[in-house]
Amino acid sequence: MKFEAPVAVTEIAAIIGAALEGNSKLMAGGINEIHKVREGDISFVDFEKYYDAALNSAATIIIINRKVACPEGKALLVTDDPFSAFVSLVKRFRPFEPAAKPISDTAVIGPDTIIQPNVFIGNHVRIGNNCIIHPNVTIYDHSVIGDNVIIHAGTVIGADAFYFKRRKERDVIYDKLESCGRVVIEDDVEIGAGCTIDKGVSGDTIIGQGTKLDNMIHIGHGTVIGRNCLFAAQVGIGGKAIIEDNVILWGQVGVSKDLTIGKDAIVLAQSGVPSSLEGSKTYFGYPAEEARMKRRELAWIKRIPEIWEKITNK
Amino acid sequence: MKFEAPVAVTEIAAIIGAALEGNSKLMAGGINEIHKVREGDISFVDFEKYYDAALNSAATIIIINRKVACPEGKALLVTDDPFSAFVSLVKRFRPFEPAAKPISDTAVIGPDTIIQPNVFIGNHVRIGNNCIIHPNVTIYDHSVIGDNVIIHAGTVIGADAFYFKRRKERDVIYDKLESCGRVVIEDDVEIGAGCTIDKGVSGDTIIGQGTKLDNMIHIGHGTVIGRNCLFAAQVGIGGKAIIEDNVILWGQVGVSKDLTIGKDAIVLAQSGVPSSLEGSKTYFGYPAEEARMKRRELAWIKRIPEIWEKITNK
Amino acid sequence: MKFEAPVAVTEIAAIIGAALEGNSKLMAGGINEIHKVREGDISFVDFEKYYDAALNSAATIIIINRKVACPEGKALLVTDDPFSAFVSLVKRFRPFEPAAKPISDTAVIGPDTIIQPNVFIGNHVRIGNNCIIHPNVTIYDHSVIGDNVIIHAGTVIGADAFYFKRRKERDVIYDKLESCGRVVIEDDVEIGAGCTIDKGVSGDTIIGQGTKLDNMIHIGHGTVIGRNCLFAAQVGIGGKAIIEDNVILWGQVGVSKDLTIGKDAIVLAQSGVPSSLEGSKTYFGYPAEEARMKRRELAWIKRIPEIWEKITNK
Repeated sequence: MKFEAPVAVTEIAAIIGAALEGNSKLMAGGINEIHKVREGDISFVDFEKYYDAALNSAATIIIINRKVACPEGKALLVTDDPFSAFVSLVKRFRPFEPAAKPISDTAVIGPDTIIQPNVFIGNHVRIGNNCIIHPNVTIYDHSVIGDNVIIHAGTVIGADAFYFKRRKERDVIYDKLESCGRVVIEDDVEIGAGCTIDKGVSGDTIIGQGTKLDNMIHIGHGTVIGRNCLFAAQVGIGGKAIIEDNVILWGQVGVSKDLTIGKDAIVLAQSGVPSSLEGSKTYFGYPAEEARMKRRELAWIKRIPEIWEKITNK
Repeated sequence: MKFEAPVAVTEIAAIIGAALEGNSKLMAGGINEIHKVREGDISFVDFEKYYDAALNSAATIIIINRKVACPEGKALLVTDDPFSAFVSLVKRFRPFEPAAKPISDTAVIGPDTIIQPNVFIGNHVRIGNNCIIHPNVTIYDHSVIGDNVIIHAGTVIGADAFYFKRRKERDVIYDKLESCGRVVIEDDVEIGAGCTIDKGVSGDTIIGQGTKLDNMIHIGHGTVIGRNCLFAAQVGIGGKAIIEDNVILWGQVGVSKDLTIGKDAIVLAQSGVPSSLEGSKTYFGYPAEEARMKRRELAWIKRIPEIWEKITNK
Repeated sequence: MKFEAPVAVTEIAAIIGAALEGNSKLMAGGINEIHKVREGDISFVDFEKYYDAALNSAATIIIINRKVACPEGKALLVTDDPFSAFVSLVKRFRPFEPAAKPISDTAVIGPDTIIQPNVFIGNHVRIGNNCIIHPNVTIYDHSVIGDNVIIHAGTVIGADAFYFKRRKERDVIYDKLESCGRVVIEDDVEIGAGCTIDKGVSGDTIIGQGTKLDNMIHIGHGTVIGRNCLFAAQVGIGGKAIIEDNVILWGQVGVSKDLTIGKDAIVLAQSGVPSSLEGSKTYFGYPAEEARMKRRELAWIKRIPEIWEKITNK
């Protein structure tokens, strides 16, 4: 998420009540996740095992829960609870704005785009030209949609990231991370009916150019999908996955979060993908393996009675 | 379902054309399912194997398809077809009321709750304070929603139970059970986009306080979910399941009806749960077993070729 | 898809820029798929292996990508790209008509049918009598719905077929097949919340009389479902499948495209059906097999450690 205008790190420190270490002259350009940050970005870290990644990332300002040596030219904002600090920044710089009407006056929509009845288009949404948005679609605030995009009925673009912090000490144990990322849908994408594509926590969820999604597909927060992918109905993909170009996922495939599926990979129906897959291969099963290996395994299973026969009958 | 005011058992008998046995002075307070009935409730039973459970339950008035000895102080309503009798009571005491407008005048909504555009809120719905109901959500009649609840776009609360009686003798063999239960969503719950939570047949479907549901989750009729549960996207749960507190279900897990998942259980992605699971353990696979056992089993499958080698090469 | 009035084959040839071979006096009645064509229909074929099927089908007019001998009494329309020719016919004879209002003036709706708020009903839709269409349902143009049909909230009827041609030579490799089929829902059908039923490419997707669908069910383009079927939540069925009468599919079952499931078959929860299944049997697993065989197989897997013990300990 980019701020509308840069914000002084001292102001950020004041908002979240953090001790400021390092360069107090810095201006923050926005908030982003460690794997996506650029110079000027704020990021947050609250697990020691991720300290190094955060401190060595491109992030200029790091919200952290313990005082450590501040890298040259950066600023640390030290606070007991970086998670809550992040949430308060989101609430301050990207507060939820209730809709005054079904299609916001702040939305910008290309002249040849068709918006069917009962569609909701939130604040600051941008939709390109020559699109069709079918009935009962919901497009949350700040979503960005390119040209020649078709979105079928009932689909939801930009709902909140499903991201909670467990607070064992509380009665209601899950603490919601307010998300401030966006959904960005590139040109020539078609999205089926009844899909849900969540926005990123602070980065963007991206559907690459020319990708086609069938019905009832779920895409988690911050996931980045390449160009010309093809996903069949009822596929589900967790948060912050990277799906490279030309990947084909058949029906009801489930893909876990924080992994990469390489270019040109094919995953057969109902498979489950718990970890990264190399490109240019065909996978099957749960956990997904190369399909020809998996088929061989299924054939071996059928032979167990024969094995039993062999060892008991001689 | 509770009646607005108690109804004389003689009136109930007349409505459904049943023979009344036992205490004819009773007043019926409502209709409920055998596992949830309280004193004053009507229940129905049409399978002999459930007769004892029904007769010994707290239900005061039992619609039954054969004359049996009436327990002390209760009333039996004997009719050939208790299922149809139940349906006629639902139609009489909780008839479908077509909506006059998108947000019913009989709905009660807390003052700081935000209702986004294109939302439907049915008759007699109650929504607490400080909630956000996102666009294109549908909330059927009589649903009850607590405080601090977030419901994302396109979600459907309170659709009919999926419950049919097979009538082999008819041309159209499935006979619909009209349902009169409710959906009750407690405080601090968040429900993702594109979810469907059905109402109970006559009892309530309950989502416990602090529970968080990701997108495209289906919850069947009368299922009771505890506090602080966490369900990932595309989970499906059948009717009348009991999911205790703090249960975590990962993506695309399927849970059958009429079972219990114990407190603190975790079910890994894509698993299928056909029967009850003890709490405080981690499960995996279909049928779901303890994950460490299942992982061992997967390792053994990989060793079948080695076994074959061993028995053929010596 | 039937044309409103017959169209001369010479006009069709002119529209798509094809060379006309054979009977140039023919009138085309409509467009259909090879497995559904009747006399007077146009069909298209662009793979040599399907030439015979197309030429020997009931189709009177065949769009084809190579000049071959024209069967007696038929007409061939020879063009390099039958796929694009088909698309241009759809755009000409069944162009997308943006909606002027949420319920089209050209829709015909039975007098005792209840349409709840926020429903979209497209152009030329026909809905019978005594139906309930719940809130936020979308019914695309040309859909046909019988009597006594219930459609729950958020369901989408008649979205486009998910059908693309891969064009390796292009930058955006998937070329959309514009679909012109319909969804036809027969009498006494109930469809749950959040379902998606796609229209056929040029034939119809049919839900047979008395069939009941639970929530979040996806039915692909051109699939034909028989009478009195029962599908539990989150079932997905690919395109052009044939599901015969009385078939029961339990929750999260996935069914591939272009196959047949025979009458009275039962498929247990989470199973995957990659190819046709005989009727009157119960199936389970992926790939789905007869349940009793599959259960035996699961029992054998459990015995691998015993086998290992036996061969290593003696």
